[in-house]
Amino acid sequence: MTAPSSSPQDLVTPDELLELWPILDADEQVEGFRLLDRAAAEPFFLSRAAAGQATLILGLPEGERRLWVRLLAPDDLADVLQVVPSARRTELLALLDEPTRHEVQALLAYAEDEAGGLMNPRYARMRPEMRVDEALRYLRQHARRKTEAIYYAFVVGPDDRLLGVLSFKELLLAPDDQTVEQVMRRDVITVPETMDQEEIARLIARHNLMALPVVDAEGRMRGIVTVDDIVHVLGEEATEDIQKLGGMEALDLPYWRTPFRTLVRKRGGWLTVLFLGEMLTATAMAGYEQEIARAVVLALFVPLIISSGGNSGSQASTLIVRAMALGEVRLGDVIRVLRRELASGIVLGSVLAIIGLVRILVWQSLFGTYGEHAALLAITVGLSLVGVVTWGTLAGSMLPFLLRRLKLDPASASAPFVATLVDVSGLVIYFSVAQIVLRGTLL
Amino acid sequence: MTAPSSSPQDLVTPDELLELWPILDADEQVEGFRLLDRAAAEPFFLSRAAAGQATLILGLPEGERRLWVRLLAPDDLADVLQVVPSARRTELLALLDEPTRHEVQALLAYAEDEAGGLMNPRYARMRPEMRVDEALRYLRQHARRKTEAIYYAFVVGPDDRLLGVLSFKELLLAPDDQTVEQVMRRDVITVPETMDQEEIARLIARHNLMALPVVDAEGRMRGIVTVDDIVHVLGEEATEDIQKLGGMEALDLPYWRTPFRTLVRKRGGWLTVLFLGEMLTATAMAGYEQEIARAVVLALFVPLIISSGGNSGSQASTLIVRAMALGEVRLGDVIRVLRRELASGIVLGSVLAIIGLVRILVWQSLFGTYGEHAALLAITVGLSLVGVVTWGTLAGSMLPFLLRRLKLDPASASAPFVATLVDVSGLVIYFSVAQIVLRGTLL
Repeated sequence: MTAPSSSPQDLVTPDELLELWPILDADEQVEGFRLLDRAAAEPFFLSRAAAGQATLILGLPEGERRLWVRLLAPDDLADVLQVVPSARRTELLALLDEPTRHEVQALLAYAEDEAGGLMNPRYARMRPEMRVDEALRYLRQHARRKTEAIYYAFVVGPDDRLLGVLSFKELLLAPDDQTVEQVMRRDVITVPETMDQEEIARLIARHNLMALPVVDAEGRMRGIVTVDDIVHVLGEEATEDIQKLGGMEALDLPYWRTPFRTLVRKRGGWLTVLFLGEMLTATAMAGYEQEIARAVVLALFVPLIISSGGNSGSQASTLIVRAMALGEVRLGDVIRVLRRELASGIVLGSVLAIIGLVRILVWQSLFGTYGEHAALLAITVGLSLVGVVTWGTLAGSMLPFLLRRLKLDPASASAPFVATLVDVSGLVIYFSVAQIVLRGTLL
Repeated sequence: MTAPSSSPQDLVTPDELLELWPILDADEQVEGFRLLDRAAAEPFFLSRAAAGQATLILGLPEGERRLWVRLLAPDDLADVLQVVPSARRTELLALLDEPTRHEVQALLAYAEDEAGGLMNPRYARMRPEMRVDEALRYLRQHARRKTEAIYYAFVVGPDDRLLGVLSFKELLLAPDDQTVEQVMRRDVITVPETMDQEEIARLIARHNLMALPVVDAEGRMRGIVTVDDIVHVLGEEATEDIQKLGGMEALDLPYWRTPFRTLVRKRGGWLTVLFLGEMLTATAMAGYEQEIARAVVLALFVPLIISSGGNSGSQASTLIVRAMALGEVRLGDVIRVLRRELASGIVLGSVLAIIGLVRILVWQSLFGTYGEHAALLAITVGLSLVGVVTWGTLAGSMLPFLLRRLKLDPASASAPFVATLVDVSGLVIYFSVAQIVLRGTLL
């Protein structure tokens, strides 16, 4: 353990390091990385996310940095620079050669989560008038190390306008003596520089693509977004949605890398908002203090009633939020969803009402728990359940539409948010039903 | 609209059809598909998920089926057959040529969600002793239409044992006169046939791969899993987890394609279980009927207290479930998570306690709502909030560990499930605190 770190018995394998990676702090990550065999270090470095690459580059001694910075493709480098404190950005940019620095600076102008920010400006390109065998030779000569993906070759005119595309397989299969123009596909799916990453992910998944060309307003090729970038995007977007649906702000960092203060802040914010909303239940309950005092038995069912509304609401909102994220449900579908969820709510509410009714009547006949007006109480609880569950389902399914219409993230319609929203109205429904059914008997 | 469907003005574009796709029923999908231009129909068909391809194949007239069935790679065909009613499987298998039928039948033996079921048995392969230029020529001759991805070429021995790998770019960059063996990489990441799709997705994302070779116990190549399959897997897994976290069974089909009966059944099942669990709150409340009768004011804060426990619990469980799905948190981390969440719970609970305390004291001084013992009531509510939120956070963060230890899906630790779990204990905490603090005054 005290031997110099270059001795072979100290080397770690990439797999060992990967296992530990999520739980190491920045210094330990750099230390572990330097214990990797040189041949293993390169693929390890390249497979890290931008944040990990930034940690490594900044943690390494100054003399070693240039090597690793230059290993990155321009789009990946831009991602790294975006997570580096801005004071250190210039320092790292200075390590690049002139043309690459320009490419990277151009990429930095785009938002990280849109096509321009995700794309790699280097891709395999060819001219339409080349013969197939010339094109293959040309690619062999020009395939540089940093041309990230060679899965498609893009056919561009002299003004960089995108004319067509050929997958490598198609190029290999084509007869030598035809021109690229004769064999290329012209119906290329392209995306604008400003397209959001979620939309790009949907397009790539929908059309089973390995890469998507990014073009500017004049149809000129700017770069390509590859499916491996999208795999990361999909994971990140799902994590964000899941955390929001759980009733907190998205963490943006892995659980162990999130500092305790941030963890508490991102949960505490929403928790406080929900708490303030939930205080209205105390106000609503206060409005029914008379009724509770007269019939304490009514209070016993308060948690059961309001939680049923919250549960059915959180099911409905989760369902609709995910369907919206997948493009299955759109703003225009609001009426169709309303009808379907209204029907679901009534059915689900009736099922719970019957169970609740039976429960009260059985307990009453066995233990006499609820006194002489048990049957009326059972009816009150049953009717309230139908009302609360139907209302919860409707509120849960409509809230995502409302949020999207207000240009907010539908995923904020979290289970706790919907539950809080439904709790107050659930109380009002319950006590209103009680006032009608129990008038003259218990109340 | 009444013109024969072959007239050009009736043709729809693939984009128009894609827009409508999720909301069409099976017959309409087939009808729409047949209105596509022949050249557009092929990529459209290939980009459908297995369920969509099955709908189209079964919906087309018998004479047209063979064409489309033969267009599919063996792994995709196996996926289609897996969603087709078993009675029709033989019928479709009969449309294949002998060798393909054998390949497909071999694939059908694997579970759909493991490496063997996802892999394509056709991939670009070469021998180690080939020269680079020979290898390129060989690939050009043997690249068949159905060799799904040519991104990597796999180097195999005479017994099909995997020796190394070359990306196409590496092959293109290598000098003509070297042998494949001299330029190939030997440290190939492989997966066994039985590896679960979630694990494969993690590996592909972690190492930024375009494809992963699947090998049997003897190290023989069986096929490849490509990143485009994984994009679909990731989406499906996230949807499943999100729906479970919302407190229902995963739907397995898009929202509009799920029949109403199924929709209600998959939600009603969990809703009923949660309702039965929540009934314990009525029992718990009945145990405190005396206290409520004596101090009705206590009942007013019941919804506020229990919902705070539920909200903090659902935050914690969502966080841990997602971190587990991403491999950030493992079973062995249980003690570290416990410590961290205990601390989070105490901090979050204290924040809410202070807000609750201030609220009661302010209302009291403004409206005199809570009578002479308002200060003691405020202390009761504050202490209960610390207890309930800490307990909710702990229960929410530990439940996913318990579920995984029991070999159940951690994602079943849904917000409503955790809330229900915490509601009963929340009541016990609240009334116990009340009995201690308010003894001799209100109680």
